[in-house]
Amino acid sequence: MDADYEGRTRACQQALSPEECLVLFPGPNLQYLTGFRDEPMERHFLLFVPREGEPVFLAPTMYDDQLADTWVSDTRLWDDGEDPREYIEEILSHLDPECLLVDDRLWARFTQDLQAVTDAEFGLASEVLADLRLKKDEAEIDAIRRASALTDRVSEEIRTLDAIGMTERDLAREIESQLADAGGEGPSFETIVAAGPNGARPHHRHGDREIEAGDPVVLDFGTRLDGYPSDQTRTVVFGGDPPTGFEAVHDVVREAQGAAVEAIAPGVPAEAVDRAAREVIEDAGYGEQFTHRTGHGVGIEVHEPPYIVDGNSRALEAGMVFSVEPGVYLDGEFGVRIEDLVVVTAEGCERLNDSPRDWR
Amino acid sequence: MDADYEGRTRACQQALSPEECLVLFPGPNLQYLTGFRDEPMERHFLLFVPREGEPVFLAPTMYDDQLADTWVSDTRLWDDGEDPREYIEEILSHLDPECLLVDDRLWARFTQDLQAVTDAEFGLASEVLADLRLKKDEAEIDAIRRASALTDRVSEEIRTLDAIGMTERDLAREIESQLADAGGEGPSFETIVAAGPNGARPHHRHGDREIEAGDPVVLDFGTRLDGYPSDQTRTVVFGGDPPTGFEAVHDVVREAQGAAVEAIAPGVPAEAVDRAAREVIEDAGYGEQFTHRTGHGVGIEVHEPPYIVDGNSRALEAGMVFSVEPGVYLDGEFGVRIEDLVVVTAEGCERLNDSPRDWR
Repeated sequence: MDADYEGRTRACQQALSPEECLVLFPGPNLQYLTGFRDEPMERHFLLFVPREGEPVFLAPTMYDDQLADTWVSDTRLWDDGEDPREYIEEILSHLDPECLLVDDRLWARFTQDLQAVTDAEFGLASEVLADLRLKKDEAEIDAIRRASALTDRVSEEIRTLDAIGMTERDLAREIESQLADAGGEGPSFETIVAAGPNGARPHHRHGDREIEAGDPVVLDFGTRLDGYPSDQTRTVVFGGDPPTGFEAVHDVVREAQGAAVEAIAPGVPAEAVDRAAREVIEDAGYGEQFTHRTGHGVGIEVHEPPYIVDGNSRALEAGMVFSVEPGVYLDGEFGVRIEDLVVVTAEGCERLNDSPRDWR
Repeated sequence: MDADYEGRTRACQQALSPEECLVLFPGPNLQYLTGFRDEPMERHFLLFVPREGEPVFLAPTMYDDQLADTWVSDTRLWDDGEDPREYIEEILSHLDPECLLVDDRLWARFTQDLQAVTDAEFGLASEVLADLRLKKDEAEIDAIRRASALTDRVSEEIRTLDAIGMTERDLAREIESQLADAGGEGPSFETIVAAGPNGARPHHRHGDREIEAGDPVVLDFGTRLDGYPSDQTRTVVFGGDPPTGFEAVHDVVREAQGAAVEAIAPGVPAEAVDRAAREVIEDAGYGEQFTHRTGHGVGIEVHEPPYIVDGNSRALEAGMVFSVEPGVYLDGEFGVRIEDLVVVTAEGCERLNDSPRDWR
């Protein structure tokens, strides 16, 4: 993906006040501005982006080469054995910001190192970056669309498996293996295979339980392409008769999901989409069993704004990408969740997933 | 693994001053005290551990079930749509600590939410937890030993592959697949397969490069068992003649690694182990090309104290587990790194890896 990292950074600088300086850390924000992709690390690794002038990397020497692949040219490298806090002091005394907008995910140990050498106030980088990242550009949407299409094909394949007797863990591995075979860059998040009563635990990942005939199985998975994730959920029964009441609950969740998708259009508040799904589920008497928000934005992060939740009055805009995933969880029995990603369009929205949503 | 989570927490409370309160976040510290294993998340999820009395979980309602599996009984659950900051305010006004020791990895957005509702000073949880976690108990050592043995067997198997023509990425997938087949719970970190000149970039992961005859290939990988990781590196040539000078460099690195292992014993400063490896490499004229520390502690985190680095005068103690991994990186040519985990014993140390260290 050919992203204009420098252009994004310049837009970000424009959005800063003269006295502000961003301080980023390996993670989504840093990836967005530089393309640098690595996990957060225990070594001091920061990018300072002042209002004017050039950004400055402070990084361990061993990352020299990777930094050379980014557009940022001012890199201060520290060796193991040196004290990186001296470099921070030097950089900050030169930039002399009155307010540091630190990465929302900056670890406390680094926050405290910054606080030790500056009297500046602290805010969050998202104050500037969230708005920029909220609306996806064509390259981003294209990556999510391709990742979603790949995931749909794997979803269709997985439904045809004879999974009775497999453990949740083995099925999760099979899913991840098929995603990788199809070209995925690794799971977007830990694959969820939740059979029978485990499906009623919305954040159960996968365990030793063997899938039995008649088990409703919640399958929630995704993979990355060009660094962007897919995220899709289907609830299926691999064989046998599902428990009493399952079919009705599945119908309700599917209807709720459809109602939420119908509600999406530019100008609509995010919470109205949540409401649309929730009303269907409440009307069916399962309001208490729909224990989470209806969706979350998807971009570099698999969970990011906009959150589709009661209380979020932010108006949807074309280019936003998020999940629509109502669920009903009957404690000790089973759970049902159906999830697609959508992109808001000028008229309404486009679903990025098209694999079958039925349970058979 | 049957860990005494409550006992660890009580020990931790004993180590607090009366006015201190720990604030943990999903990650290694929380896993150490409660067994709760999940990734950091964008929803407010905190554990407050005061000096006296019972710890308090603040968590999203959907985690109710997982929290019930922990020993902590006081859980405050918040629903999507509620403002979790109100719960934080309530908990802190009740506990009324003068100092919050926050998780070293606590995200800045949560740090700032805490700062908004308290005048307490801020410190780091590691001030109390690092010492407790530094020396591993038998259950922990056993888990790392088993993860290391599993990784050794995969390492031996991988050496026998006809990998010429495979891409780094495909070989990384093969390694991860074999680790999972052998019972591993997923990679300890992103598998490194760095062929030819890529091996000179110590944190290159894997890419599209095809492995060629004569390529030195740095293979650095590990997996988890019972939540504890292995971490092992070998530099091998799958076929053909390695580049001029490679064999000599490999000999130097191997000798340096042996010298470092020899230097390990209780009471020895961590930096002396680094020195032992570095001297061998400096004497061979490659001091400038050994660009990182000699090792890092391994526990719940694959990188944690003790760091085996110049400037760390901390004395080694029996029960500490860390990596010994000197390397030499010749820019544009190749890299060599050899890594084993060791556990410090009463007499010296025990290597936890025993797979062949030669390059053939």
